[in-house]
Amino acid sequence: MGIDYQHIKVIGFDADDTLWVNETYFREAEAEFGKLLSEYETPNKIDQELFKKEIANLPLYGYGVKAFVLSMVEMALELSNYDVSNKTIEAILNIGKEMLNKPVELLDGVEDVLHHLSKKYRLILATKGDLLDQERKLERSGLTDYFHHIEVLSDKQEINYSRLLNHLDINPSEFLMVGNSLKSDILPLVNIKAHAIHVPFHTTWAHEQVSEKETNGKVYRTISSLRELKRLLN
Amino acid sequence: MGIDYQHIKVIGFDADDTLWVNETYFREAEAEFGKLLSEYETPNKIDQELFKKEIANLPLYGYGVKAFVLSMVEMALELSNYDVSNKTIEAILNIGKEMLNKPVELLDGVEDVLHHLSKKYRLILATKGDLLDQERKLERSGLTDYFHHIEVLSDKQEINYSRLLNHLDINPSEFLMVGNSLKSDILPLVNIKAHAIHVPFHTTWAHEQVSEKETNGKVYRTISSLRELKRLLN
Repeated sequence: MGIDYQHIKVIGFDADDTLWVNETYFREAEAEFGKLLSEYETPNKIDQELFKKEIANLPLYGYGVKAFVLSMVEMALELSNYDVSNKTIEAILNIGKEMLNKPVELLDGVEDVLHHLSKKYRLILATKGDLLDQERKLERSGLTDYFHHIEVLSDKQEINYSRLLNHLDINPSEFLMVGNSLKSDILPLVNIKAHAIHVPFHTTWAHEQVSEKETNGKVYRTISSLRELKRLLN
Repeated sequence: MGIDYQHIKVIGFDADDTLWVNETYFREAEAEFGKLLSEYETPNKIDQELFKKEIANLPLYGYGVKAFVLSMVEMALELSNYDVSNKTIEAILNIGKEMLNKPVELLDGVEDVLHHLSKKYRLILATKGDLLDQERKLERSGLTDYFHHIEVLSDKQEINYSRLLNHLDINPSEFLMVGNSLKSDILPLVNIKAHAIHVPFHTTWAHEQVSEKETNGKVYRTISSLRELKRLLN
């Protein structure tokens, strides 16, 4: 029993936390930020306030490291009641620079699976975030040649995917999306009648979390490793 | 006498300072930044140092407002010898937020020209900068429907345009690019044997300026207003 993938022509892969490690670096950066401001607040409070600030700035700044750094600087000023030192502000900027300079760490089985699937399917990369940063990560990953098309989206809602499928000139039933985020990689696809396979990553940004109510009745498959795609799509 | 555009199928338009005002807002922001730091340095020195910082950060941050703000914050720390006030840092962040919230101010004749050309040619928008910011500006401009395809590039070098033409599945001889930057919109196109029309804007970021040596012997047309396209491409 199961879901039938025989009409699939194009497979879309999310990048961050699906092909390579990303969210882990944000968790580390948040911990570092908490330490920098530890004289003003508890780590828990700092985490909560930073998250609120990121969400408040999201419509203006969008996703990605630069947006994250700008929100950290703004939060540091406010949390410290305009008392934070210039050296701490500099340390915050440096957290961002280090994140942008991180080597790309591929997740288990990625290259093997892409190599296998690229023989039969057209593969595309569909990611959100900062354009330059995502292009750089793809280049560093060594995976560029497996992808027919790279799409960096400003957001991953139904409308963004519908436009993408329109642009690729394929029907939703011919498209399968693979990713770690229920909110961004799975539910919008299921809602436009495309296919989706969920590969959870061990940590998820609070903004990407969805309630049970939202997944209730939605049809998608969950796998524990990208490696399982070889069996499902042979 | 002149250049023959009869094989043109697709016309690419740059966005910032070709369709709408952009660089003017950066000049205003730089002036504002100079005032904020006027106790530490002369406006001229601040301008020069900020430009150096932007260029140094370009490989890491790329183009756009968020990158600009991060460079201003870093510059403020350094120029003041780590003495700048938290309120000044906040004012710098607010310069960026204001820039991102600016209304879109179309340049003379834009809508008329796009309306006219869209009947005969496939029009695309080819811009660099921040993905979300450019999408937002396009939406605010009301021009979305004139464009068949929107391409936000992380850079505008020959390789980026070659990939774009490949993706559009057309020959360079069938493509005409229209823009205000010799460096980004004109020379790379001429070098890959596509067509280009230069429409200068009254102010150009120093990074986009090119020497006479670079334009020497290159074939492209310069017009003083976008309106002239109606006559040239009738």
